[in-house]
Amino acid sequence: MKQADNIILMGRNPLVEALNEGKDIEKVFILDSLRGDIEKEIRGICKDQNIPLSRVPNEKLNALAGNRNHQGVVGMISPIHFQELDDVLSLAFEQGKSPAIVILEGVSDVRNMAAICRSALVFGLDAVVITAKKHAAINSDTIKISAGAILNIPVCREKNMNAVIEKCKMYGIQILATDLHGAVAIDACDFTGPVAIVMGAEDMGVTPETLKQADQKIKIPQISDFDSLNVSVAAGIIFYQMMRSRA
Amino acid sequence: MKQADNIILMGRNPLVEALNEGKDIEKVFILDSLRGDIEKEIRGICKDQNIPLSRVPNEKLNALAGNRNHQGVVGMISPIHFQELDDVLSLAFEQGKSPAIVILEGVSDVRNMAAICRSALVFGLDAVVITAKKHAAINSDTIKISAGAILNIPVCREKNMNAVIEKCKMYGIQILATDLHGAVAIDACDFTGPVAIVMGAEDMGVTPETLKQADQKIKIPQISDFDSLNVSVAAGIIFYQMMRSRA
Repeated sequence: MKQADNIILMGRNPLVEALNEGKDIEKVFILDSLRGDIEKEIRGICKDQNIPLSRVPNEKLNALAGNRNHQGVVGMISPIHFQELDDVLSLAFEQGKSPAIVILEGVSDVRNMAAICRSALVFGLDAVVITAKKHAAINSDTIKISAGAILNIPVCREKNMNAVIEKCKMYGIQILATDLHGAVAIDACDFTGPVAIVMGAEDMGVTPETLKQADQKIKIPQISDFDSLNVSVAAGIIFYQMMRSRA
Repeated sequence: MKQADNIILMGRNPLVEALNEGKDIEKVFILDSLRGDIEKEIRGICKDQNIPLSRVPNEKLNALAGNRNHQGVVGMISPIHFQELDDVLSLAFEQGKSPAIVILEGVSDVRNMAAICRSALVFGLDAVVITAKKHAAINSDTIKISAGAILNIPVCREKNMNAVIEKCKMYGIQILATDLHGAVAIDACDFTGPVAIVMGAEDMGVTPETLKQADQKIKIPQISDFDSLNVSVAAGIIFYQMMRSRA
Protein backbone atom coordinates (compact mmCIF):
# COMPACT_ATOMS: atom_id res chain seq x y z
CA MET A 1 0.00 0.00 0.00
CA LYS A 2 1.39 3.39 -0.93
CA GLN A 3 0.94 5.92 1.78
CA ALA A 4 2.98 8.72 0.29
CA ASP A 5 0.16 11.07 -0.50
CA ASN A 6 -2.16 10.43 2.38
CA ILE A 7 -2.23 12.94 5.17
CA ILE A 8 -0.55 11.42 8.19
CA LEU A 9 -1.83 11.84 11.71
CA MET A 10 0.50 10.92 14.56
CA GLY A 11 0.62 10.90 18.34
CA ARG A 12 -1.83 9.34 20.75
CA ASN A 13 -4.06 12.29 21.59
CA PRO A 14 -4.38 13.65 18.03
CA LEU A 15 -5.25 10.19 16.72
CA VAL A 16 -7.82 9.38 19.41
CA GLU A 17 -9.39 12.81 18.99
CA ALA A 18 -9.64 12.42 15.22
CA LEU A 19 -11.16 8.96 15.63
CA ASN A 20 -13.68 10.20 18.18
CA GLU A 21 -14.63 13.11 15.95
CA GLY A 22 -15.48 10.57 13.24
CA LYS A 23 -12.82 11.84 10.82
CA ASP A 24 -12.39 9.59 7.78
CA ILE A 25 -9.37 7.50 8.67
CA GLU A 26 -8.22 5.04 6.05
CA LYS A 27 -5.96 2.96 8.23
CA VAL A 28 -4.32 2.99 11.65
CA PHE A 29 -0.85 1.64 12.40
CA ILE A 30 0.23 0.92 15.97
CA LEU A 31 3.50 -0.28 17.42
CA ASP A 32 3.47 -4.06 17.65
CA SER A 33 4.48 -3.90 21.33
CA LEU A 34 1.84 -1.29 22.28
CA ARG A 35 -0.26 -2.41 25.25
CA GLY A 36 -2.49 -0.86 27.92
CA ASP A 37 -5.47 1.49 27.85
CA ILE A 38 -4.43 3.41 24.78
CA GLU A 39 -4.09 0.23 22.74
CA LYS A 40 -7.48 -0.98 23.94
CA GLU A 41 -9.12 2.36 23.19
CA ILE A 42 -7.73 2.61 19.67
CA ARG A 43 -8.52 -1.02 18.92
CA GLY A 44 -12.09 -0.55 20.13
CA ILE A 45 -12.73 2.56 18.04
CA CYS A 46 -11.19 1.00 14.92
CA LYS A 47 -13.40 -2.04 15.35
CA ASP A 48 -16.52 0.09 15.79
CA GLN A 49 -15.74 2.26 12.80
CA ASN A 50 -14.51 -0.51 10.46
CA ILE A 51 -11.06 1.04 10.24
CA PRO A 52 -8.27 -1.41 9.36
CA LEU A 53 -5.71 -1.64 12.17
CA SER A 54 -2.20 -2.88 11.60
CA ARG A 55 0.50 -3.74 14.16
CA VAL A 56 3.92 -2.86 12.82
CA PRO A 57 7.52 -2.52 14.01
CA ASN A 58 8.90 0.84 15.07
CA GLU A 59 10.87 1.20 11.82
CA LYS A 60 7.66 1.20 9.81
CA LEU A 61 6.10 3.83 12.07
CA ASN A 62 9.23 5.99 11.80
CA ALA A 63 9.09 5.76 8.03
CA LEU A 64 5.39 6.64 7.95
CA ALA A 65 5.87 9.54 10.34
CA GLY A 66 8.95 10.88 8.59
CA ASN A 67 10.87 10.24 11.80
CA ARG A 68 8.71 12.66 13.77
CA ASN A 69 7.48 11.74 17.25
CA HIS A 70 4.60 9.34 16.68
CA GLN A 71 4.27 7.83 20.19
CA GLY A 72 3.65 4.43 18.65
CA VAL A 73 0.54 5.37 16.67
CA VAL A 74 0.02 6.66 13.15
CA GLY A 75 -3.25 7.16 11.29
CA MET A 76 -3.79 7.91 7.64
CA ILE A 77 -6.58 10.36 6.88
CA SER A 78 -8.60 9.16 3.92
CA PRO A 79 -8.86 11.52 0.96
CA ILE A 80 -12.46 10.39 0.51
CA HIS A 81 -15.42 10.57 2.81
CA PHE A 82 -16.85 7.12 3.49
CA GLN A 83 -20.62 7.01 3.54
CA GLU A 84 -22.95 4.77 5.50
CA LEU A 85 -24.46 1.99 3.39
CA ASP A 86 -27.70 2.39 5.37
CA ASP A 87 -27.92 6.05 4.39
CA VAL A 88 -27.21 5.35 0.73
CA LEU A 89 -29.81 2.59 0.51
CA SER A 90 -32.46 4.51 2.47
CA LEU A 91 -31.99 7.52 0.22
CA ALA A 92 -32.28 5.44 -2.95
CA PHE A 93 -35.51 3.82 -1.75
CA GLU A 94 -36.90 7.19 -0.63
CA GLN A 95 -36.23 8.52 -4.12
CA GLY A 96 -38.21 5.63 -5.54
CA LYS A 97 -35.13 4.13 -7.11
CA SER A 98 -34.27 0.48 -7.31
CA PRO A 99 -30.76 0.66 -5.86
CA ALA A 100 -27.82 -1.11 -7.48
CA ILE A 101 -24.55 -1.41 -5.67
CA VAL A 102 -21.30 -3.26 -6.24
CA ILE A 103 -19.54 -5.05 -3.40
CA LEU A 104 -15.81 -5.60 -3.77
CA GLU A 105 -14.79 -8.72 -1.90
CA GLY A 106 -11.06 -8.31 -1.71
CA VAL A 107 -10.27 -6.47 -4.95
CA SER A 108 -6.74 -5.49 -3.99
CA ASP A 109 -5.36 -3.71 -7.04
CA VAL A 110 -5.71 0.06 -7.00
CA ARG A 111 -6.15 0.21 -10.78
CA ASN A 112 -8.92 -2.33 -10.74
CA MET A 113 -10.68 -0.56 -7.91
CA ALA A 114 -10.32 2.78 -9.67
CA ALA A 115 -11.61 1.38 -12.98
CA ILE A 116 -14.60 -0.21 -11.21
CA CYS A 117 -15.46 3.14 -9.58
CA ARG A 118 -15.36 4.80 -13.02
CA SER A 119 -17.67 2.18 -14.50
CA ALA A 120 -20.00 2.28 -11.48
CA LEU A 121 -20.37 6.03 -11.91
CA VAL A 122 -20.80 5.84 -15.70
CA PHE A 123 -23.52 3.20 -15.46
CA GLY A 124 -25.38 4.85 -12.60
CA LEU A 125 -24.73 2.54 -9.66
CA ASP A 126 -25.58 3.90 -6.23
CA ALA A 127 -22.50 2.85 -4.27
CA VAL A 128 -19.25 0.95 -4.19
CA VAL A 129 -18.94 -1.13 -1.03
CA ILE A 130 -15.65 -2.34 0.37
CA THR A 131 -14.93 -4.27 3.52
CA ALA A 132 -12.41 -3.28 6.15
CA LYS A 133 -10.59 -6.58 5.93
CA LYS A 134 -8.79 -6.27 2.64
CA HIS A 135 -9.11 -3.74 -0.11
CA ALA A 136 -7.06 -1.64 -2.46
CA ALA A 137 -5.58 1.51 -0.97
CA ILE A 138 -7.60 4.68 -1.32
CA ASN A 139 -5.17 7.54 -1.73
CA SER A 140 -4.44 10.33 -4.16
CA ASP A 141 -3.26 7.78 -6.74
CA THR A 142 -6.57 5.96 -6.56
CA ILE A 143 -8.41 9.23 -7.07
CA LYS A 144 -6.22 10.10 -10.03
CA ILE A 145 -6.46 6.68 -11.69
CA SER A 146 -10.23 6.76 -11.19
CA ALA A 147 -10.26 10.07 -13.09
CA GLY A 148 -11.97 11.53 -10.03
CA ALA A 149 -14.83 9.02 -10.17
CA ILE A 150 -14.19 7.82 -6.64
CA LEU A 151 -14.97 11.32 -5.38
CA ASN A 152 -18.30 11.28 -7.19
CA ILE A 153 -19.82 7.99 -6.13
CA PRO A 154 -20.60 6.96 -2.54
CA VAL A 155 -17.99 4.55 -1.15
CA CYS A 156 -19.10 2.57 1.91
CA ARG A 157 -16.82 0.60 4.18
CA GLU A 158 -18.34 -2.26 6.09
CA LYS A 159 -16.84 -4.50 8.74
CA ASN A 160 -16.90 -7.67 6.65
CA MET A 161 -18.88 -9.50 4.00
CA ASN A 162 -21.33 -10.92 6.52
CA ALA A 163 -22.23 -7.43 7.67
CA VAL A 164 -22.79 -6.29 4.07
CA ILE A 165 -24.84 -9.31 3.12
CA GLU A 166 -26.96 -8.95 6.26
CA LYS A 167 -27.71 -5.32 5.42
CA CYS A 168 -28.58 -6.21 1.83
CA LYS A 169 -30.98 -8.91 2.94
CA MET A 170 -32.56 -6.49 5.41
CA TYR A 171 -33.29 -4.10 2.56
CA GLY A 172 -34.52 -6.84 0.24
CA ILE A 173 -31.57 -6.44 -2.08
CA GLN A 174 -30.81 -9.45 -4.23
CA ILE A 175 -27.18 -10.55 -4.02
CA LEU A 176 -25.68 -11.53 -7.38
CA ALA A 177 -22.25 -13.08 -7.17
CA THR A 178 -20.02 -13.53 -10.19
CA ASP A 179 -18.89 -17.08 -10.69
CA LEU A 180 -17.38 -18.77 -13.72
CA HIS A 181 -19.74 -21.63 -13.06
CA GLY A 182 -22.66 -19.31 -12.50
CA ALA A 183 -26.07 -20.60 -13.31
CA VAL A 184 -27.42 -17.53 -15.05
CA ALA A 185 -25.84 -15.66 -17.95
CA ILE A 186 -26.02 -11.92 -17.38
CA ASP A 187 -28.06 -11.36 -20.52
CA ALA A 188 -30.73 -13.65 -19.10
CA CYS A 189 -30.55 -12.15 -15.63
CA ASP A 190 -33.23 -9.97 -14.06
CA PHE A 191 -31.57 -6.79 -12.89
CA THR A 192 -34.72 -4.73 -12.44
CA GLY A 193 -35.10 -5.11 -8.68
CA PRO A 194 -32.66 -3.84 -6.05
CA VAL A 195 -29.36 -5.64 -6.61
CA ALA A 196 -25.89 -5.97 -5.17
CA ILE A 197 -23.23 -7.34 -7.50
CA VAL A 198 -20.32 -9.03 -5.77
CA MET A 199 -16.94 -8.96 -7.53
CA GLY A 200 -14.17 -11.10 -6.06
CA ALA A 201 -10.44 -10.78 -5.62
CA GLU A 202 -8.18 -10.79 -8.67
CA ASP A 203 -6.73 -14.20 -7.93
CA MET A 204 -9.50 -16.08 -6.19
CA GLY A 205 -12.80 -14.54 -7.25
CA VAL A 206 -15.78 -14.46 -4.92
CA THR A 207 -15.22 -16.64 -1.84
CA PRO A 208 -17.13 -19.91 -1.47
CA GLU A 209 -18.78 -18.53 1.71
CA THR A 210 -20.21 -15.56 -0.16
CA LEU A 211 -21.23 -17.70 -3.14
CA LYS A 212 -23.24 -19.82 -0.71
CA GLN A 213 -25.07 -16.78 0.63
CA ALA A 214 -25.74 -15.24 -2.77
CA ASP A 215 -29.26 -15.26 -4.18
CA GLN A 216 -27.97 -15.87 -7.67
CA LYS A 217 -24.69 -16.87 -9.27
CA ILE A 218 -24.17 -15.00 -12.51
CA LYS A 219 -21.69 -15.39 -15.36
CA ILE A 220 -20.66 -13.47 -18.43
CA PRO A 221 -21.34 -15.50 -21.58
CA GLN A 222 -18.26 -15.95 -23.74
CA ILE A 223 -16.98 -17.60 -26.86
CA SER A 224 -13.64 -19.13 -25.98
CA ASP A 225 -13.07 -21.37 -23.02
CA PHE A 226 -10.31 -19.09 -21.82
CA ASP A 227 -12.30 -17.94 -18.84
CA SER A 228 -10.28 -15.13 -17.48
CA LEU A 229 -11.50 -11.57 -17.81
CA ASN A 230 -9.85 -8.87 -15.77
CA VAL A 231 -12.08 -8.14 -12.75
CA SER A 232 -12.63 -4.49 -13.68
CA VAL A 233 -13.53 -5.46 -17.26
CA ALA A 234 -15.98 -8.07 -15.97
CA ALA A 235 -17.54 -5.52 -13.61
CA GLY A 236 -17.90 -3.00 -16.46
CA ILE A 237 -19.64 -5.55 -18.68
CA ILE A 238 -22.06 -6.53 -15.91
CA PHE A 239 -22.88 -2.87 -15.11
CA TYR A 240 -23.46 -2.21 -18.82
CA GLN A 241 -25.74 -5.22 -19.17
CA MET A 242 -27.62 -4.18 -16.03
CA MET A 243 -28.14 -0.67 -17.37
CA ARG A 244 -29.48 -2.10 -20.64
CA SER A 245 -31.74 -4.59 -18.92
CA ARG A 246 -33.16 -1.81 -16.72
CA ALA A 247 -33.70 0.62 -19.60
CA MET B 1 9.33 0.26 -20.94
CA LYS B 2 10.65 -2.55 -18.76
CA GLN B 3 13.17 -4.67 -20.55
CA ALA B 4 14.26 -6.82 -17.66
CA ASP B 5 12.75 -10.05 -18.79
CA ASN B 6 13.18 -9.85 -22.52
CA ILE B 7 15.97 -11.79 -24.09
CA ILE B 8 18.65 -9.39 -25.17
CA LEU B 9 20.52 -9.70 -28.44
CA MET B 10 23.69 -7.65 -28.85
CA GLY B 11 26.47 -7.06 -31.32
CA ARG B 12 26.17 -6.07 -34.97
CA ASN B 13 26.38 -9.45 -36.69
CA PRO B 14 24.08 -11.32 -34.30
CA LEU B 15 21.48 -8.57 -34.54
CA VAL B 16 21.54 -8.29 -38.33
CA GLU B 17 21.41 -12.08 -38.66
CA ALA B 18 18.42 -12.32 -36.33
CA LEU B 19 16.66 -9.54 -38.21
CA ASN B 20 17.33 -11.16 -41.58
CA GLU B 21 16.11 -14.50 -40.29
CA GLY B 22 12.82 -12.82 -39.41
CA LYS B 23 13.14 -13.46 -35.68
CA ASP B 24 10.50 -11.66 -33.64
CA ILE B 25 12.29 -8.59 -32.40
CA GLU B 26 10.28 -6.30 -30.16
CA LYS B 27 12.56 -3.30 -30.35
CA VAL B 28 16.02 -2.29 -31.50
CA PHE B 29 18.25 0.23 -29.72
CA ILE B 30 21.24 1.77 -31.48
CA LEU B 31 23.89 4.19 -30.31
CA ASP B 32 22.80 7.74 -31.05
CA SER B 33 26.09 8.44 -32.81
CA LEU B 34 26.01 5.28 -34.95
CA ARG B 35 26.51 6.05 -38.68
CA GLY B 36 27.57 4.23 -41.84
CA ASP B 37 26.44 1.06 -43.59
CA ILE B 38 25.50 -0.84 -40.44
CA GLU B 39 23.21 1.97 -39.29
CA LYS B 40 21.57 2.13 -42.73
CA GLU B 41 21.13 -1.63 -42.89
CA ILE B 42 19.54 -1.92 -39.44
CA ARG B 43 17.34 1.10 -40.05
CA GLY B 44 16.15 -0.34 -43.36
CA ILE B 45 15.29 -3.75 -41.94
CA CYS B 46 13.48 -2.24 -38.95
CA LYS B 47 11.43 -0.07 -41.26
CA ASP B 48 10.53 -3.03 -43.48
CA GLN B 49 9.58 -5.22 -40.55
CA ASN B 50 7.76 -2.56 -38.48
CA ILE B 51 10.22 -2.89 -35.64
CA PRO B 52 10.49 0.18 -33.40
CA LEU B 53 14.01 1.64 -33.53
CA SER B 54 15.34 3.88 -30.79
CA ARG B 55 18.57 5.94 -30.75
CA VAL B 56 20.00 6.06 -27.26
CA PRO B 57 23.18 7.11 -25.42
CA ASN B 58 25.90 4.59 -24.67
CA GLU B 59 24.90 4.43 -20.99
CA LYS B 60 21.48 3.07 -21.92
CA LEU B 61 23.02 0.42 -24.19
CA ASN B 62 25.45 -0.59 -21.44
CA ALA B 63 22.59 -0.97 -19.01
CA LEU B 64 20.55 -3.01 -21.48
CA ALA B 65 23.53 -5.22 -22.33
CA GLY B 66 24.59 -5.69 -18.73
CA ASN B 67 27.88 -4.01 -19.65
CA ARG B 68 28.75 -6.70 -22.16
CA ASN B 69 30.17 -5.74 -25.56
CA HIS B 70 27.20 -4.54 -27.59
CA GLN B 71 29.04 -2.72 -30.44
CA GLY B 72 26.42 0.02 -30.34
CA VAL B 73 23.41 -2.17 -31.08
CA VAL B 74 20.99 -4.05 -28.87
CA GLY B 75 17.82 -5.86 -29.86
CA MET B 76 15.11 -7.28 -27.66
CA ILE B 77 13.67 -10.59 -28.74
CA SER B 78 9.92 -10.57 -28.35
CA PRO B 79 8.41 -13.28 -26.18
CA ILE B 80 5.51 -13.51 -28.61
CA HIS B 81 5.41 -14.32 -32.28
CA PHE B 82 3.89 -11.50 -34.28
CA GLN B 83 1.57 -12.63 -37.05
CA GLU B 84 0.82 -11.02 -40.37
CA LEU B 85 -2.53 -9.27 -40.45
CA ASP B 86 -2.97 -10.44 -44.06
CA ASP B 87 -2.58 -14.06 -42.99
CA VAL B 88 -5.01 -13.71 -40.11
CA LEU B 89 -7.65 -12.05 -42.26
CA SER B 90 -7.24 -14.43 -45.19
CA LEU B 91 -7.55 -17.41 -42.87
CA ALA B 92 -10.71 -16.05 -41.25
CA PHE B 93 -12.34 -15.43 -44.62
CA GLU B 94 -11.26 -18.86 -45.87
CA GLN B 95 -12.91 -20.40 -42.82
CA GLY B 96 -16.11 -18.60 -43.74
CA LYS B 97 -15.87 -16.39 -40.68
CA SER B 98 -16.69 -12.73 -40.47
CA PRO B 99 -13.47 -11.52 -38.90
CA ALA B 100 -13.45 -9.14 -35.95
CA ILE B 101 -10.24 -7.48 -34.85
CA VAL B 102 -9.28 -4.77 -32.42
CA ILE B 103 -6.78 -2.09 -33.36
CA LEU B 104 -4.94 -0.39 -30.50
CA GLU B 105 -4.03 3.14 -31.51
CA GLY B 106 -1.47 4.05 -28.90
CA VAL B 107 -2.71 2.10 -25.85
CA SER B 108 0.46 2.51 -23.82
CA ASP B 109 -0.29 0.87 -20.50
CA VAL B 110 0.78 -2.76 -20.21
CA ARG B 111 -2.14 -3.61 -17.93
CA ASN B 112 -4.67 -2.16 -20.33
CA MET B 113 -3.11 -3.98 -23.26
CA ALA B 114 -3.05 -7.23 -21.30
CA ALA B 115 -6.67 -6.83 -20.19
CA ILE B 116 -7.75 -6.11 -23.77
CA CYS B 117 -5.99 -9.26 -25.00
CA ARG B 118 -7.84 -11.28 -22.36
CA SER B 119 -11.19 -9.84 -23.41
CA ALA B 120 -10.41 -10.26 -27.11
CA LEU B 121 -9.68 -13.93 -26.53
CA VAL B 122 -12.73 -14.47 -24.30
CA PHE B 123 -15.11 -12.90 -26.82
CA GLY B 124 -13.62 -14.62 -29.85
CA LEU B 125 -11.89 -11.82 -31.71
CA ASP B 126 -9.49 -12.85 -34.45
CA ALA B 127 -6.57 -10.56 -33.71
CA VAL B 128 -5.16 -7.69 -31.71
CA VAL B 129 -3.40 -5.19 -33.95
CA ILE B 130 -0.78 -2.74 -32.71
CA THR B 131 1.28 -0.24 -34.62
CA ALA B 132 5.04 0.07 -34.45
CA LYS B 133 4.86 3.71 -33.48
CA LYS B 134 3.71 3.55 -29.90
CA HIS B 135 2.40 0.68 -27.90
CA ALA B 136 2.65 -0.95 -24.52
CA ALA B 137 5.69 -3.16 -24.00
CA ILE B 138 5.27 -6.83 -24.74
CA ASN B 139 7.39 -8.75 -22.29
CA SER B 140 7.04 -11.46 -19.70
CA ASP B 141 5.06 -9.07 -17.48
CA THR B 142 2.56 -8.47 -20.24
CA ILE B 143 2.16 -12.20 -20.73
CA LYS B 144 1.66 -12.72 -17.00
CA ILE B 145 -0.83 -9.86 -16.58
CA SER B 146 -2.74 -11.13 -19.61
CA ALA B 147 -3.01 -14.50 -17.85
CA GLY B 148 -1.39 -15.97 -20.94
CA ALA B 149 -4.06 -14.61 -23.28
CA ILE B 150 -1.53 -12.74 -25.40
CA LEU B 151 0.07 -16.09 -26.28
CA ASN B 152 -3.28 -17.42 -27.45
CA ILE B 153 -4.54 -14.72 -29.75
CA PRO B 154 -2.79 -13.48 -32.91
CA VAL B 155 -1.00 -10.17 -32.33
CA CYS B 156 -0.15 -8.24 -35.50
CA ARG B 157 2.22 -5.31 -35.70
CA GLU B 158 1.70 -2.88 -38.52
CA LYS B 159 3.79 0.09 -39.57
CA ASN B 160 1.19 2.73 -38.68
CA MET B 161 -2.53 3.38 -38.57
CA ASN B 162 -2.70 4.25 -42.25
CA ALA B 163 -1.26 0.88 -43.16
CA VAL B 164 -3.81 -0.90 -40.94
CA ILE B 165 -6.75 1.08 -42.24
CA GLU B 166 -5.66 0.51 -45.83
CA LYS B 167 -5.49 -3.24 -45.26
CA CYS B 168 -8.90 -3.27 -43.58
CA LYS B 169 -10.47 -1.37 -46.47
CA MET B 170 -8.85 -3.78 -48.92
CA TYR B 171 -10.54 -6.68 -47.15
CA GLY B 172 -13.87 -4.89 -46.87
CA ILE B 173 -13.61 -4.62 -43.11
CA GLN B 174 -15.70 -1.89 -41.55
CA ILE B 175 -13.72 0.38 -39.25
CA LEU B 176 -15.54 1.30 -36.06
CA ALA B 177 -13.82 3.92 -33.96
CA THR B 178 -14.79 4.63 -30.37
CA ASP B 179 -15.65 8.24 -29.75
CA LEU B 180 -17.46 9.86 -26.86
CA HIS B 181 -19.40 11.83 -29.43
CA GLY B 182 -19.96 8.78 -31.57
CA ALA B 183 -23.06 8.72 -33.68
CA VAL B 184 -24.12 5.15 -33.01
CA ALA B 185 -24.62 3.52 -29.62
CA ILE B 186 -23.08 0.06 -29.57
CA ASP B 187 -26.40 -1.61 -28.81
CA ALA B 188 -27.75 -0.17 -32.06
CA CYS B 189 -24.63 -0.98 -34.04
CA ASP B 190 -24.43 -3.67 -36.71
CA PHE B 191 -21.50 -5.91 -35.83
CA THR B 192 -22.42 -8.79 -38.09
CA GLY B 193 -20.07 -8.01 -40.98
CA PRO B 194 -16.27 -7.99 -40.82
CA VAL B 195 -15.27 -5.30 -38.33
CA ALA B 196 -12.23 -3.63 -36.88
CA ILE B 197 -12.74 -1.81 -33.57
CA VAL B 198 -10.29 1.00 -32.90
CA MET B 199 -9.46 1.81 -29.27
CA GLY B 200 -7.43 4.94 -28.61
CA ALA B 201 -4.75 5.97 -26.17
CA GLU B 202 -5.56 6.28 -22.47
CA ASP B 203 -5.28 10.04 -22.44
CA MET B 204 -6.36 11.11 -25.91
CA GLY B 205 -8.62 8.43 -27.32
CA VAL B 206 -8.71 7.69 -31.04
CA THR B 207 -6.90 10.37 -33.04
CA PRO B 208 -8.89 12.83 -35.18
CA GLU B 209 -7.14 11.46 -38.31
CA THR B 210 -8.37 7.95 -37.60
CA LEU B 211 -11.85 9.15 -36.65
CA LYS B 212 -12.03 10.81 -40.06
CA GLN B 213 -11.17 7.58 -41.83
CA ALA B 214 -13.51 5.41 -39.77
CA ASP B 215 -16.66 4.04 -41.35
CA GLN B 216 -18.60 4.51 -38.14
CA LYS B 217 -18.08 6.31 -34.84
CA ILE B 218 -19.47 4.27 -31.99
CA LYS B 219 -20.13 5.03 -28.34
CA ILE B 220 -21.08 3.13 -25.22
CA PRO B 221 -24.43 4.32 -23.88
CA GLN B 222 -24.27 5.44 -20.28
CA ILE B 223 -26.28 6.95 -17.48
CA SER B 224 -24.12 9.62 -15.90
CA ASP B 225 -22.40 12.35 -17.85
CA PHE B 226 -19.09 11.32 -16.33
CA ASP B 227 -17.78 10.03 -19.60
CA SER B 228 -14.64 8.29 -18.64
CA LEU B 229 -14.42 4.52 -18.77
CA ASN B 230 -11.04 2.86 -18.55
CA VAL B 231 -9.98 1.89 -22.10
CA SER B 232 -9.77 -1.83 -21.33
CA VAL B 233 -13.21 -1.77 -19.70
CA ALA B 234 -14.64 0.05 -22.72
CA ALA B 235 -13.06 -2.51 -25.06
CA GLY B 236 -14.48 -5.39 -23.01
CA ILE B 237 -17.99 -3.93 -23.13
CA ILE B 238 -17.81 -3.43 -26.90
CA PHE B 239 -16.51 -6.97 -27.50
CA TYR B 240 -19.29 -8.34 -25.29
CA GLN B 241 -21.93 -6.35 -27.14
CA MET B 242 -20.48 -7.47 -30.47
CA MET B 243 -20.59 -11.12 -29.42
CA ARG B 244 -24.23 -10.73 -28.37
CA SER B 245 -25.21 -8.92 -31.54
CA ARG B 246 -23.56 -11.64 -33.63
CA ALA B 247 -25.13 -14.49 -31.67
